Amino acid sequence: MNERGLFRKRRPPAGSVPGTLSIDKTEPFPKINLISFSETEFLEREALNPEELVKHTFEPGKVSWVDVQGLGDEKTLRILGDIFNLHPLALEDVANVPQIPKVEEYDNCLFLCLRMIRIADGAIMSEQVSIFISDSFVLTFQERYGDVLDPVRNRMRRGAAIRKMGNDYTAYAIVDTIVDNYYSVLEVMGNSLESLEDELIVRPGKEKLKELYDLKHQLAELKRILWPTRDAIGQLVRNENAYIERKTALYFRDVFDHSMQAIDMLDLYRELTSELMNLYLSSMSNRMNDIMKVLTIISTIFIPLSFVAGVYGMNFAYMPELEVKWAYPIVLGIMVAIASGMLYFFHRRGWFRKY
Amino acid sequence: MNERGLFRKRRPPAGSVPGTLSIDKTEPFPKINLISFSETEFLEREALNPEELVKHTFEPGKVSWVDVQGLGDEKTLRILGDIFNLHPLALEDVANVPQIPKVEEYDNCLFLCLRMIRIADGAIMSEQVSIFISDSFVLTFQERYGDVLDPVRNRMRRGAAIRKMGNDYTAYAIVDTIVDNYYSVLEVMGNSLESLEDELIVRPGKEKLKELYDLKHQLAELKRILWPTRDAIGQLVRNENAYIERKTALYFRDVFDHSMQAIDMLDLYRELTSELMNLYLSSMSNRMNDIMKVLTIISTIFIPLSFVAGVYGMNFAYMPELEVKWAYPIVLGIMVAIASGMLYFFHRRGWFRKY
Amino acid sequence: MNERGLFRKRRPPAGSVPGTLSIDKTEPFPKINLISFSETEFLEREALNPEELVKHTFEPGKVSWVDVQGLGDEKTLRILGDIFNLHPLALEDVANVPQIPKVEEYDNCLFLCLRMIRIADGAIMSEQVSIFISDSFVLTFQERYGDVLDPVRNRMRRGAAIRKMGNDYTAYAIVDTIVDNYYSVLEVMGNSLESLEDELIVRPGKEKLKELYDLKHQLAELKRILWPTRDAIGQLVRNENAYIERKTALYFRDVFDHSMQAIDMLDLYRELTSELMNLYLSSMSNRMNDIMKVLTIISTIFIPLSFVAGVYGMNFAYMPELEVKWAYPIVLGIMVAIASGMLYFFHRRGWFRKY
Amino acid sequence: MNERGLFRKRRPPAGSVPGTLSIDKTEPFPKINLISFSETEFLEREALNPEELVKHTFEPGKVSWVDVQGLGDEKTLRILGDIFNLHPLALEDVANVPQIPKVEEYDNCLFLCLRMIRIADGAIMSEQVSIFISDSFVLTFQERYGDVLDPVRNRMRRGAAIRKMGNDYTAYAIVDTIVDNYYSVLEVMGNSLESLEDELIVRPGKEKLKELYDLKHQLAELKRILWPTRDAIGQLVRNENAYIERKTALYFRDVFDHSMQAIDMLDLYRELTSELMNLYLSSMSNRMNDIMKVLTIISTIFIPLSFVAGVYGMNFAYMPELEVKWAYPIVLGIMVAIASGMLYFFHRRGWFRKY
Amino acid sequence: MNERGLFRKRRPPAGSVPGTLSIDKTEPFPKINLISFSETEFLEREALNPEELVKHTFEPGKVSWVDVQGLGDEKTLRILGDIFNLHPLALEDVANVPQIPKVEEYDNCLFLCLRMIRIADGAIMSEQVSIFISDSFVLTFQERYGDVLDPVRNRMRRGAAIRKMGNDYTAYAIVDTIVDNYYSVLEVMGNSLESLEDELIVRPGKEKLKELYDLKHQLAELKRILWPTRDAIGQLVRNENAYIERKTALYFRDVFDHSMQAIDMLDLYRELTSELMNLYLSSMSNRMNDIMKVLTIISTIFIPLSFVAGVYGMNFAYMPELEVKWAYPIVLGIMVAIASGMLYFFHRRGWFRKY
Repeated sequence: MNERGLFRKRRPPAGSVPGTLSIDKTEPFPKINLISFSETEFLEREALNPEELVKHTFEPGKVSWVDVQGLGDEKTLRILGDIFNLHPLALEDVANVPQIPKVEEYDNCLFLCLRMIRIADGAIMSEQVSIFISDSFVLTFQERYGDVLDPVRNRMRRGAAIRKMGNDYTAYAIVDTIVDNYYSVLEVMGNSLESLEDELIVRPGKEKLKELYDLKHQLAELKRILWPTRDAIGQLVRNENAYIERKTALYFRDVFDHSMQAIDMLDLYRELTSELMNLYLSSMSNRMNDIMKVLTIISTIFIPLSFVAGVYGMNFAYMPELEVKWAYPIVLGIMVAIASGMLYFFHRRGWFRKY
Repeated sequence: MNERGLFRKRRPPAGSVPGTLSIDKTEPFPKINLISFSETEFLEREALNPEELVKHTFEPGKVSWVDVQGLGDEKTLRILGDIFNLHPLALEDVANVPQIPKVEEYDNCLFLCLRMIRIADGAIMSEQVSIFISDSFVLTFQERYGDVLDPVRNRMRRGAAIRKMGNDYTAYAIVDTIVDNYYSVLEVMGNSLESLEDELIVRPGKEKLKELYDLKHQLAELKRILWPTRDAIGQLVRNENAYIERKTALYFRDVFDHSMQAIDMLDLYRELTSELMNLYLSSMSNRMNDIMKVLTIISTIFIPLSFVAGVYGMNFAYMPELEVKWAYPIVLGIMVAIASGMLYFFHRRGWFRKY
Repeated sequence: MNERGLFRKRRPPAGSVPGTLSIDKTEPFPKINLISFSETEFLEREALNPEELVKHTFEPGKVSWVDVQGLGDEKTLRILGDIFNLHPLALEDVANVPQIPKVEEYDNCLFLCLRMIRIADGAIMSEQVSIFISDSFVLTFQERYGDVLDPVRNRMRRGAAIRKMGNDYTAYAIVDTIVDNYYSVLEVMGNSLESLEDELIVRPGKEKLKELYDLKHQLAELKRILWPTRDAIGQLVRNENAYIERKTALYFRDVFDHSMQAIDMLDLYRELTSELMNLYLSSMSNRMNDIMKVLTIISTIFIPLSFVAGVYGMNFAYMPELEVKWAYPIVLGIMVAIASGMLYFFHRRGWFRKY
Repeated sequence: MNERGLFRKRRPPAGSVPGTLSIDKTEPFPKINLISFSETEFLEREALNPEELVKHTFEPGKVSWVDVQGLGDEKTLRILGDIFNLHPLALEDVANVPQIPKVEEYDNCLFLCLRMIRIADGAIMSEQVSIFISDSFVLTFQERYGDVLDPVRNRMRRGAAIRKMGNDYTAYAIVDTIVDNYYSVLEVMGNSLESLEDELIVRPGKEKLKELYDLKHQLAELKRILWPTRDAIGQLVRNENAYIERKTALYFRDVFDHSMQAIDMLDLYRELTSELMNLYLSSMSNRMNDIMKVLTIISTIFIPLSFVAGVYGMNFAYMPELEVKWAYPIVLGIMVAIASGMLYFFHRRGWFRKY
Repeated sequence: MNERGLFRKRRPPAGSVPGTLSIDKTEPFPKINLISFSETEFLEREALNPEELVKHTFEPGKVSWVDVQGLGDEKTLRILGDIFNLHPLALEDVANVPQIPKVEEYDNCLFLCLRMIRIADGAIMSEQVSIFISDSFVLTFQERYGDVLDPVRNRMRRGAAIRKMGNDYTAYAIVDTIVDNYYSVLEVMGNSLESLEDELIVRPGKEKLKELYDLKHQLAELKRILWPTRDAIGQLVRNENAYIERKTALYFRDVFDHSMQAIDMLDLYRELTSELMNLYLSSMSNRMNDIMKVLTIISTIFIPLSFVAGVYGMNFAYMPELEVKWAYPIVLGIMVAIASGMLYFFHRRGWFRKY
């Protein structure tokens, strides 16, 4: 999730025909991958063209996961829309990213729109994953090549329990993996927060403040992803629908719990960042007090002393004290007395106490 | 939306008969335009008078969109109210702008009240659009000439899919275009926010603060438009009513999603502007610390030194040090030592560290 | 609404018998006015005594609006309670002002409790209006003589549409006029807000702050009136009840909309006053920075220079520089150099930039 | 309500058998009073022992109000629990104070738990009143001797309307009196608030701040009492239950209204105290600005002048100005010019304006 | 609850097969304890192996509480899962701590997930307790050896009332004891709060601030435990389910009340800590004002005096005052006058008043 994530939204010009796809041609060209399996059979094909795809999908008794990576070509998207009979408004949501995470039921399938967040090359990356679930296929669209779903693919390849389940379970496995990845991002943010916590008190400063602000910004955006994600999954759990069996709904309840926990962490972080801002302001106030105390102590001690010295630096012809033999040491003594008095006054006020 | 948008409201004096229209005669005179079409026929007429209008509307099997721009003449509004059989309270809502966006069902039609926001000549402009939807017509009232609906008109002229649909779909196209235009305004505000974000830290100052305050003001007003708009459209989606077909309701669900996304952006902006205020205050606090540090360092170094110089500027007759040969360089040395001690003290406190 | 409005509440001592009236005898003596009309007849009588009142009311087919102004006599209130058969708890609510605005249904009538706010002699005045609606009468109680309802009376006198409607419509006209008057108060507050907005930035100061605080106080009290008013009217709109016809309910929906818009304005004002407080604090922070900058610049330039002057004012016997011919101009030159260095330092830090 | 009210809670050690009573033996010994009456008969007995009590209660056709003051003896409480057949968990709630105000329905009675707040000897005192309402008795438990219910007892003694009503009405009279007493406490707090309002601006200081904090603390605790009280009473109004007749429910609705008004006042006070804190901070900021202005004006005027004086106090052998005849008055003139310039500069900046 | 409690969460890598247990082998090895009893019989066995366990459990007519302490061995957990027929997702929740407190119904049992908080060795410790309730057993899993449940065990050993009740009552006793222990932690926090309250005003400083921040952090985490705990128990109270009898549900209502009271205290503490932060900031502001006042008073008195002294220290050849006999005492007198004037000015401004 780069920092301006939600500021930049691809959408067709206002007033366009509904279903208009807003394609950015610099985005990757759609690559179509297929994994099709039953308990005994397993087929995996990469970079299919649409015609090949039709040949291998829709086999009864088999789970077909069609994974499209890249949204850079309108024609391919339209063809896929025709093959899988997708509603134009759903296809619009696939192409015009980012959408708010949501679930929508269409006549022939369930449409689930999520955001996949992962850490690639040290940076947080975010892309939309659109999932269509029907009786005969699971169809996913991703914005870019590469994703976090390899563990799911490996479980399919290994012939694990997942091979005995239906399309809905495959969808569950995908959603579960996407949600679990939110934790890794939250962990990165939690670490930033912890280090800020320590540094803001010891060495408050401008850059820390900017970091804190950026962290709040990221948490605010993440909140805007996590909350609707939770609601969408909650809808899957609660609502009866034709595409998710009761048995699998139990697993979705588990994902729902995970999303709740992620939100819980997020909320804690958000609360703590707000507190940190307060802490920072108080810290600055403390520093200012410290600085002012130093200035005030030095000034109030030496300004009166300098005045005394100034008086005896005057050039009046008749200043009888000047001729007195012990005047100089006496005046020095008076100065020491004034300084001591001042120091005692500050001591009484507790200005030397170390807080 | 000019800054005092919601402060200024046109309404008849309290206690007036309900249905009283509060007409501002300096507003543009109502201009009546008509677009009437079926799949095969298309008729467009501008600046009709009411009699001509009656001739061309209410043809069965045809969609008639009557668009009235300008609210500056009570008589014309009353005549139109009679022609289309509008409830007096609805007509009052048309004339006494601004109303809070809302939807109301009357016996013979659905009344939808929205605000159209657009950017004209660099400024944000806002006007009320009142939409009446019935089986036989779509009637819109706008406050001023000119609007954002030309893409819709062009789709009608081109003979696009819209020509095959009913009055409800035309209403949808209008509402959709109005809502999509909210994004353009949000984008302008997002840009202001981004530039403020950068500048408030680097060059905090009075004007930036006023800009931030004005931005918050605009966002607060926009919120007061977007939230009820979302509620009104949500009501259209949820409630069964006689004027919107189930098929078209699906499209309104799409508009509802868009309004949700606009609100989502708005909320993020509002949150960030609040954070910016905090950031600004912290920045100011930082600057103050910097300024005070400079003052304190200079003062605490030189005030004691000046005192020493003052002491040896006294004119006492018996000050034995004054006669000592190396006294002057020794005193200079002592001064250097004091200054160094102070500098070391500040260094130890970390006051020279660059934050 | 005087400033301590909600602090001062008239209520009988705790533990009194329910229905106890808490009468303040310095309040005006109840004045009973009657307007009774049908479409063709019209009767208006002022300052009736209860016996006369009975003679003229309860005529079938006629609307009777009995308006009682002043609550200063318990006996009169009790007699009226008997005549109109009011529940003791309702009569208690009439006398023990102020009540929170509310609607309550009794066996023989509907009881509506509102606050009338108006501007009289430049000050905001607030009093309770208690309205009883039954099939055969509309009965209103006001705290003081004089009100905002003259436009309603005039419509009745003129024989307008209102003469064709029932008691419920008369009640609507009264409620509508009361709610519309909230706008005039809001407008006054909006003007205060606007002027504070401008002044708090240009000339922040103590009195402005107190004004802002008082404005917030007034808005907080107004909120406590407007929200329950809205709820009460909303209850009239939603709930079926025997005293308001379906046709009139539509008009109440209009009043409900108006109350919503008043709340909307109020909320905006409240939000803006909060922002203003922040703005004020930031402004003060800005001023402080300005003041400190001036002090710091002057001090850091002249304190070192004074030190140099002090050194050469010392009276040591052996200070070789003092005898050098060009020493004086050289020292002056050094001083200029120090001052220039300081100025350059401040310039580099941007302290002379005008923010 | 003493300040640590909710911090100190008496409860048995964790893991105890449910129904364990946590008795503080220093609390007053339970004193059992009985008032029993019908419309014609009246019996009042104080300090009964349980055996005597049984003799006088449970008479059909009579209202019996058993009032137990003091919770300092477990045995007595247990015996009373047996006599009136109280559920062990209810008895636990009676003894283990404070409970959150609530209403609970048991098989044979209704259990209502409230807090009585009163002002005794100038301090706010708070104790729990547990009320059991059944068909044949009203049983109340109070923490300490003395209460606010004497007006109710007097009404019973006087043979007022209350003598014609049932147990439920007696319960109502008790609850009504307790709720009405909240106002007296709110009034005391309102007065504190008003005086703080005036003083915080004129003479802001540490003690005022502590007072404000304590007031907020008290309001926060009061909120924790009033809100659940309102909910509990609301439950009595809404829910049909066997122990409160429909006729009496109308009276409870009145109490509910009173509790709403108390909450309304409380909320206003809470809002205003928050504003006061802001006002205080702004006031401090104002003072600081004032102080700094004085310092800056004096310093920036005299520091440069002192520098000039310092220059001509130097002892260089060759300072030609020193010998010039009019040099001294000229230098004095320059000093006046510098000071005037500074003053003009401050005047231009508006530092002398009185805010 | 150590401070980073919710930051550290054990969970299997994203994309794992559901039901994967994330075991930390450094955690204690599971120790299986059994208490089995009927009204007449009582059996207690410690550190059983699974085979022994099977022998002693599932006896009809007996309550069997199987308590597993330590989660450090996957095989044992799996075996236990098989013995008691636990759903894989439930077992996953047992092992992958911490979970958010919740209740879930499975086909053969009720699963309740809570957090046990206790004070051990002066530190707050937190661990997850997973409770399975069925007709024939109560099964609990704890993270570590040692718990707060000994009072429950003792009641069983003593043959108290608990021996007459079923499995659901045993579960109640466990939950009740866990919830009651929250108070002890709240009490510790309340004490910290009270001491901070006193110290933050008298001796505000950096460490206090950090303490306050840490307290807020702890309260924020505790809130995240208490709220879902309340919801989970509330679910037990409201929902009919096969494992908790109506009679026992009444006891759970009591626990629910306790959890409400704990939340109530928590909320009060949270509110007060926020106020304390404000108080702290105000205190700092006060201190700053004090410091600045001292500096300003000293500076503004002596800086003008020093200037006067400086003037008469100048070495002009012609300064006629210098030769005047009484000039010196006159100048001293002027100085006293200036100082007195300044002091009077500060007195008038109220700077010497003690706030």
